[in-house]
Amino acid sequence: MTESTRIARLQGLLTEAGHAAMYVSDLLNIRYLTGFTGSNGALLVHAAKDPVFLTDGRYKDQAAVQLVAAGLGQIEVVITRDLIGVAAGRAPSDLAAETHLLDVDSWQKLDRPEPSGRLIEQLRLVKDEAEIAALRRACEISVAALEGLLTGPLVGRTEREVARDLQWRMLELGADDKAFDTILAAGENTAIPHHEPTDRPLATGDLLKIDFGALADGYHADCTRTVVLGKAQPWQVEIHAAVRQAQQTGLDQLRAGELIADVFNAVTTSLAESGWLDSFTTGLGHGVGLQIHEDPFLGTTHPGRLASRMVLTMEPGIYLPGSGGVRIEDTVLVTDPEHGGEPDVLTDTTKELLEIH
Amino acid sequence: MTESTRIARLQGLLTEAGHAAMYVSDLLNIRYLTGFTGSNGALLVHAAKDPVFLTDGRYKDQAAVQLVAAGLGQIEVVITRDLIGVAAGRAPSDLAAETHLLDVDSWQKLDRPEPSGRLIEQLRLVKDEAEIAALRRACEISVAALEGLLTGPLVGRTEREVARDLQWRMLELGADDKAFDTILAAGENTAIPHHEPTDRPLATGDLLKIDFGALADGYHADCTRTVVLGKAQPWQVEIHAAVRQAQQTGLDQLRAGELIADVFNAVTTSLAESGWLDSFTTGLGHGVGLQIHEDPFLGTTHPGRLASRMVLTMEPGIYLPGSGGVRIEDTVLVTDPEHGGEPDVLTDTTKELLEIH
Repeated sequence: MTESTRIARLQGLLTEAGHAAMYVSDLLNIRYLTGFTGSNGALLVHAAKDPVFLTDGRYKDQAAVQLVAAGLGQIEVVITRDLIGVAAGRAPSDLAAETHLLDVDSWQKLDRPEPSGRLIEQLRLVKDEAEIAALRRACEISVAALEGLLTGPLVGRTEREVARDLQWRMLELGADDKAFDTILAAGENTAIPHHEPTDRPLATGDLLKIDFGALADGYHADCTRTVVLGKAQPWQVEIHAAVRQAQQTGLDQLRAGELIADVFNAVTTSLAESGWLDSFTTGLGHGVGLQIHEDPFLGTTHPGRLASRMVLTMEPGIYLPGSGGVRIEDTVLVTDPEHGGEPDVLTDTTKELLEIH
Repeated sequence: MTESTRIARLQGLLTEAGHAAMYVSDLLNIRYLTGFTGSNGALLVHAAKDPVFLTDGRYKDQAAVQLVAAGLGQIEVVITRDLIGVAAGRAPSDLAAETHLLDVDSWQKLDRPEPSGRLIEQLRLVKDEAEIAALRRACEISVAALEGLLTGPLVGRTEREVARDLQWRMLELGADDKAFDTILAAGENTAIPHHEPTDRPLATGDLLKIDFGALADGYHADCTRTVVLGKAQPWQVEIHAAVRQAQQTGLDQLRAGELIADVFNAVTTSLAESGWLDSFTTGLGHGVGLQIHEDPFLGTTHPGRLASRMVLTMEPGIYLPGSGGVRIEDTVLVTDPEHGGEPDVLTDTTKELLEIH
């Protein structure tokens, strides 16, 4: 019944905004509202009556099964190759649409509906039980796969081989897929924030940075750990400690009611105090859910506050071009203040600077 | 230098259409024109002067490397978080844009450019040497992975396990990823055209349908084979033979100059002759390239003709709900008539009804 609750909330927002209906074209937003996972569909959500779902003949059976599973077995399903044309014929005149996502040609055919704004993305900011369960599962699979990988041996294998090994472990543990292309970097490559794995062999003395995650039921995990192969050198220990301190500072801030800008500033203050702020050149964190990167994005100009049941990453790093870098990242659930409000780290595995042999 | 040739061709089309410039927003079209593989970028292509590439700070280094590799080292790169705003400020008044892909809000900010139509997709219909090499490699990896998988044993393993095994083999053979989620169906599940693998174990007597492919350098392979576990039953032999006959009829038609509607009609005539046309309920074929499904789509109402260096699938099938189904699919290159014009089957592996033990 989760999806029908989400639709009811959207209907509330439409009523507030004065729209009789909304044409939903984005497939992730459609999945969120209906459970439908096909590659072609549309949803006409009326503020005051049942929605209408549209898809083509390829997805007739799948849509029926998925809508029933979502508690939406009663809504009308239209099978057509012309989603836009049929929707245009059935939409009320005061229609809204996702003009930040909908293509211009479709918008013209719909007779130029009003912008809905990011109404569904706003709902998606705060996760419900089903979403949290999927995120938790994706994170558990990720962490178990990493722990298996780090039993080694790693030295002598290439970045690409080790990335593939990690992907295999996630699939074996029940992931539907990897959540994104694994960033697995060794030695000087760890200084490149979004390095693509190469045929470079891992060698003793290297830092090894692994930014990865599993996909489960459409939900993404996002986790980074940095370890060292062999004995850590003093500079590696120093930047790892600074990142770990900054990351812990950030984690401590992930509480309902906190200003997002304050979270950001707490972490950069930590990095400034350790003297490494200039080497932090990437984003600090982002929401995670049906997308690997989604609202809210942590930044100093963000006007908003954290709320219970947001799920987001905390991922400061230090990058020293030519030498190496460290990033530590968790996917974290913001919890209810009435249950203590402690940040719930979903990617719960050690952040020690492990020395892997 | 391939990408600079593609840009030159686009400039020719812009001049013909009377557009001073085109704002390219679609990331696959940008990749096609520049080699850039990041997740945020835009390209302003002027009809009569060098293009301007826009991306954000995360991709500064990557864009520099990829543009040089594409022979575009001389073009201006603008680093900005506001691609649309900067492009709007620099675009001529008679600008075109991909209104079939561009979102409405961006289009408004660009001051409502004219529709470009599918100019770049039109270029992408006919593959150049670099694209054909990537497609050939993706198909070779796919076929080698399948041949390894079919050495068995398969009986007793689940659909999901076998699909994962195939994915692993493609990665081991050098694929960057799977081209799409493998459709691996056993027994009665083979009757579902786009079945998602389940925990159903493969059993003696089952048909086994595998629709899969590798991704290499951004290009997709698409191949389906249907085999039987154990000894084939007469009905399995019959529908397999009918599909194979229809598929061969279709392959024979994949020649430069053929009307696409004629190709379609030849295959459906074959299926009508064998008495199975009513059980062919899916699409017959589609272009393959940077997308797994792209122009041209084979259909009886398509007004166009095949041209040399198009790459497309030929994939008739027979689906008997509750019992089983057979699909046979190849990815095929249409060749130059002056070199004989024989269709070049890139997924070259047996189409016998193998009996796997």
